[in-house]
Amino acid sequence: MARIAVDAMGGDHAPLAVVRGAEAARVEHVADVVLVGDEGLVRPLLGRQAHIEIVHAPVKVTMEDSPSTALRRKKDSSMGRAFALLKEGKVDAVVSAGNSGAAMAFAIFTLGRISGVERPAIITVHPNASGSLSALLDAGGNVDCKPSHLVQFALMGNVFAKYILGIEAPRIGLLSNGEEETKGNDLTRETHAQLKTLPFNYSGYVEGNDLYNGKADVVVTDGFVGNVALKASEGLAELMVSFLKERIGKSMRSKVGYKLLSDVFNALSKTCDYSEYGGMPLVGVDGVCIICHGKSNERAIKNAIIQAKSFVGKNLSGHIRDAMDEYALSAQNKER
Amino acid sequence: MARIAVDAMGGDHAPLAVVRGAEAARVEHVADVVLVGDEGLVRPLLGRQAHIEIVHAPVKVTMEDSPSTALRRKKDSSMGRAFALLKEGKVDAVVSAGNSGAAMAFAIFTLGRISGVERPAIITVHPNASGSLSALLDAGGNVDCKPSHLVQFALMGNVFAKYILGIEAPRIGLLSNGEEETKGNDLTRETHAQLKTLPFNYSGYVEGNDLYNGKADVVVTDGFVGNVALKASEGLAELMVSFLKERIGKSMRSKVGYKLLSDVFNALSKTCDYSEYGGMPLVGVDGVCIICHGKSNERAIKNAIIQAKSFVGKNLSGHIRDAMDEYALSAQNKER
Repeated sequence: MARIAVDAMGGDHAPLAVVRGAEAARVEHVADVVLVGDEGLVRPLLGRQAHIEIVHAPVKVTMEDSPSTALRRKKDSSMGRAFALLKEGKVDAVVSAGNSGAAMAFAIFTLGRISGVERPAIITVHPNASGSLSALLDAGGNVDCKPSHLVQFALMGNVFAKYILGIEAPRIGLLSNGEEETKGNDLTRETHAQLKTLPFNYSGYVEGNDLYNGKADVVVTDGFVGNVALKASEGLAELMVSFLKERIGKSMRSKVGYKLLSDVFNALSKTCDYSEYGGMPLVGVDGVCIICHGKSNERAIKNAIIQAKSFVGKNLSGHIRDAMDEYALSAQNKER
Repeated sequence: MARIAVDAMGGDHAPLAVVRGAEAARVEHVADVVLVGDEGLVRPLLGRQAHIEIVHAPVKVTMEDSPSTALRRKKDSSMGRAFALLKEGKVDAVVSAGNSGAAMAFAIFTLGRISGVERPAIITVHPNASGSLSALLDAGGNVDCKPSHLVQFALMGNVFAKYILGIEAPRIGLLSNGEEETKGNDLTRETHAQLKTLPFNYSGYVEGNDLYNGKADVVVTDGFVGNVALKASEGLAELMVSFLKERIGKSMRSKVGYKLLSDVFNALSKTCDYSEYGGMPLVGVDGVCIICHGKSNERAIKNAIIQAKSFVGKNLSGHIRDAMDEYALSAQNKER
């Protein structure tokens, strides 16, 4: 059974939500869980029958720690120790809802990057209008990207969609301000030219709304644009929900209507609920690592552990390594 | 009364929707409208009592025309003639729902830029959670921007929010991937440093969701990110709506619920309906110009004419000119 190290001190609701999520995963025999954190805090939260190992690491990486501070001064933190366990081969994956910049830094410096990957990237997965899932990368901290970085994101996204989402020939789209070839900025134009030469199913430019309509299985962009796009959509969704709530409270008629529609609204909120999807995989590092929302609840942590187990089982890192090697080889052959 | 030239041939539903919108504005004595387009097509659509002048210009700029082709070969088009009328002082503003790239090009080359503005920008206005309106710029075609461009967008956005939205000291936010000073990319970091020195109400970095929560009155970004953010939010809103529609159709209970909530849903869709807000002003050119959605209906055209009239009455271009002059002067003084 896969062994997953979970950063017990990471996240707004740590350690309680993390411990509960780990227990829930353990109860369902999803994986062997190793909780890394302050034993004095974690042990009392664990049920007697939990059969969960604790690795004592009392120091916590806070949200205020910069990635470099965390790396330099908090190697012994719960987060640092979790990645060290993975590097040492004592676990198969790491799950953390802590400071995501610090988690990326630990992942990159402890595990190292897969050969051919200049910048590891964070993937988010969300439902689309065709009833399947779409992935976006980079949703992380790679704000100033070169075309080579985006090409690598596309290669990794392709592997992810193929082996994790189970899509045979994933349609890869490059996020732009229009579909026409004349659109885009300097970065996307150069990336577009390179992506066209690659042996995968490249669909060209896609637009912001294509994130959600199922036109692409994988949407590639830099971490700045990815972050803005995701947060902007979240923002409009929240505005719509708050508008509805306010108006619905204003009349008996609408209150009754809402009650009759409660199943539908619940289904919608479940579809939009991040905790259903677990966390966000960091791809391109040499090992499986899931970064969770800071606000992760028990359910999100449990789902992240399930995700981590699946990535280990499906050998995500191995497939990414193969894809990058293949790409390097074909680039060499072209040069000859 | 302000005289507004309306491009009768521009837009998916032209000339009918444009003619109807112009008539509606005329009936309400909003402004004197000059319809610029193919007289043979436009005249039969006009009511007898319309009192609307037609300037005959049968050539149409199509969606396939590149801005440079339109400029070189279609000076006599309805769009080209409308801007020429404004340049010649025969009208006070132009409204067009045609090819927006071409409209920007005609505006810039016919009217010229206001001194101190390197790149004119498109503003979009949308409702926010605090019940007021927020503006975003650039929502247009300035995809590769320098810090100086974004600073000019901020200055123009400030004037727009002050004189058009009526906000005394508009809060100006710079769109970024996080609020902390350590966030942002090369472009935003340099822009951020410059915006801090300006004598307006700069709130620093804002995030994608702040577009809709009312945290800023004006959100500044480049045209690539602006486009992606707006389309991504639209996309998620559409996904939510299609999800609700599909589920609601599935049971009698939910159909009844929907019926009881129909007022609420109608109010929401009205709030989100672009046609309520008219079109998007292009600021930084020497004259008032409103660019409308290609899919503009009668109502959107009418509202754009109302907008145009208000911008003329409130002397938007004059205030932008003053703000740019003041900025140039203070920059000179600093250099001394």
